[in-house]
Amino acid sequence: MPADADPVTVLSEDESWSLLSSVSLGRLVTILDGQPEIFPVNFVIQRRTVLFRTAQGTKLFSAVMGDRVAFEADDHTAAGGWSVILKGRAHVLSATEEILEAEETPLIPWIPTMKPLYVRVVALEITGRRFEFGT
Amino acid sequence: MPADADPVTVLSEDESWSLLSSVSLGRLVTILDGQPEIFPVNFVIQRRTVLFRTAQGTKLFSAVMGDRVAFEADDHTAAGGWSVILKGRAHVLSATEEILEAEETPLIPWIPTMKPLYVRVVALEITGRRFEFGT
Repeated sequence: MPADADPVTVLSEDESWSLLSSVSLGRLVTILDGQPEIFPVNFVIQRRTVLFRTAQGTKLFSAVMGDRVAFEADDHTAAGGWSVILKGRAHVLSATEEILEAEETPLIPWIPTMKPLYVRVVALEITGRRFEFGT
Repeated sequence: MPADADPVTVLSEDESWSLLSSVSLGRLVTILDGQPEIFPVNFVIQRRTVLFRTAQGTKLFSAVMGDRVAFEADDHTAAGGWSVILKGRAHVLSATEEILEAEETPLIPWIPTMKPLYVRVVALEITGRRFEFGT
């Protein structure tokens, strides 16, 4: 099979950020008590970082405190799909100017109860792939 | 807010398996070299286990060898969504009868290159939640 017909296309960083920005549901992946954990979150992209909300005392809050995380979003149709995965570090926003900047985004929480905290994931690495499904 | 108006509904095991069976794209989550990893996979549910394909030598293959894993699938509309997460153990099928049973399923690989191996995830725990989005 020639390379240009390969069913998997590696996306550029620009394409990966652009696709991430096109969806609102992603998944934060962390290690908690030695076990892999995954949390669906509504997110937005701001200055090439992932921004989402959580609340103190939640499992998600424990999971993002100072740890290495992965974050994934994808979308697909019957013909194919894409997936973008980033690896990075998550931190809870505490400085007033950071929180004010986060509040400029149209961020809707996945769970519409009070989510007073913002978490930002800074990417150390981002990889995106586009797939065509086989028949 | 009264309990019956809570925007998060915990789903029963039956509902969780039923919703898992309604989609074909999920995400396997593991720990590899001490880091959280996530892999989108096309899967089917067979006898309340998750079944997907991979190939020897892939990163996904390394990730599922004998480890504790999490698996997540979700779906959403503008009004709300659901997410089902299971924790369990993954193993590569090797016995002929296991492989023949797996081949009865309509499993399409996410990447349509040769995927000669089947992986089955046996759940130790399954949790499902349904969400209504806030305004």
